[in-house]
Amino acid sequence: MKIALVGGTGDIGTGFAVRWGQKHEIIIGSRNVDKARESAAAVLQLLGAAADVRGTDNAGAVATADVVVLCVPYEHLAFVTADLKDSYKSQLVISPVVPMIYNGKFFLYNPPAEGSAALQTRRLLPKGVRLVSAFHTICAAALQDIERMMKGDAFICGDEAEAIDIVMELAGEIKSLRPLKAGPLAASSLVESLTPFLLNVARKNKIKDAGIAVVSERKLSEQMAKIIKN
Amino acid sequence: MKIALVGGTGDIGTGFAVRWGQKHEIIIGSRNVDKARESAAAVLQLLGAAADVRGTDNAGAVATADVVVLCVPYEHLAFVTADLKDSYKSQLVISPVVPMIYNGKFFLYNPPAEGSAALQTRRLLPKGVRLVSAFHTICAAALQDIERMMKGDAFICGDEAEAIDIVMELAGEIKSLRPLKAGPLAASSLVESLTPFLLNVARKNKIKDAGIAVVSERKLSEQMAKIIKN
Repeated sequence: MKIALVGGTGDIGTGFAVRWGQKHEIIIGSRNVDKARESAAAVLQLLGAAADVRGTDNAGAVATADVVVLCVPYEHLAFVTADLKDSYKSQLVISPVVPMIYNGKFFLYNPPAEGSAALQTRRLLPKGVRLVSAFHTICAAALQDIERMMKGDAFICGDEAEAIDIVMELAGEIKSLRPLKAGPLAASSLVESLTPFLLNVARKNKIKDAGIAVVSERKLSEQMAKIIKN
Repeated sequence: MKIALVGGTGDIGTGFAVRWGQKHEIIIGSRNVDKARESAAAVLQLLGAAADVRGTDNAGAVATADVVVLCVPYEHLAFVTADLKDSYKSQLVISPVVPMIYNGKFFLYNPPAEGSAALQTRRLLPKGVRLVSAFHTICAAALQDIERMMKGDAFICGDEAEAIDIVMELAGEIKSLRPLKAGPLAASSLVESLTPFLLNVARKNKIKDAGIAVVSERKLSEQMAKIIKN
């Protein structure tokens, strides 16, 4: 697949490029083309020349891609959606965007009038575009380390089964990352708000490179009995 | 400590009674005193006659307690706070209450005007009462099984360090449950909204007895290096 990472020169964009660049064609997008090319060169140095990673402007990245990941802070959401409307047609767009603020004491979820960044993005993008929200709680530092096994889960919201399946598969290509469905796009606020929660918990308890996992509290014996029965 | 479990005849109340009843005095409260006594008898049967567990009405339970846990659905919050105002003085109140709705497709967080059940409870209770919100994501079924090791974490919000410490200690008495601070009481919405998120994920992915854990994505080698350095 051709994967565009718009605003992809930062930590999270580099992380996806490194993880998906061995198998897919990666187009790192940026408003600063030189920066995008530098990022691509750095990823290629890591993955080797056989990988297909290049840098260009955001519009160009979107226009040629099958899958677009919005690797931008919430404040830049309009720049990479509404402002690039003409570049979008029928891509699958993945939004890990989280609208949040720091009030001087703790992080708070601060959604737009639509209820979530995902629902706002739905309104900003052409109708033919498929939208899935995912990867809000992935630790960017760990993602960039290609060999790192992930302990956290990837939570995915969307309305189209086929689009969700593609994102589940992309998530599953990242070592030991478990993709979990978290409901339709309208449930995205519950997943976006995990990020300020996680930042508060990480800071208050000094947890480095934090992620979130859903666990099962079933007894091992119960789990074994179920496996044997199946 | 004397711990009142108001509305404590259900799964979560029974869970706390079983876990804390070996060390503390437990008062199960209910609008139905007979039901409260039956619950207390059931817990005593499990813990043995040496345990101190009894049932009474909610007002009586609150009046004699050091710590009060609001084991009620959001819809009953006023019955066990504003309606029992005269029974409260300087107790430490723990709210695991989650205002949420099921819209026919998925669970949604549905906070009151105050922003969270915790902040509403703060308004409904006398000023001398200390309030902490916690235990929103604890699996009640696993909690009731006294020997079960918990894999999920307990997330705790509050404004008073001493009150938070007491709740951290109570949480720590539950086998392998890790208490984590999640910010001041005003950050409670981020913790309350974990519950509808968790219910959606559990249902969509068929995870039984689900809980939430914060994980560290640090490399083991990095973690070891840090331990050696300290």
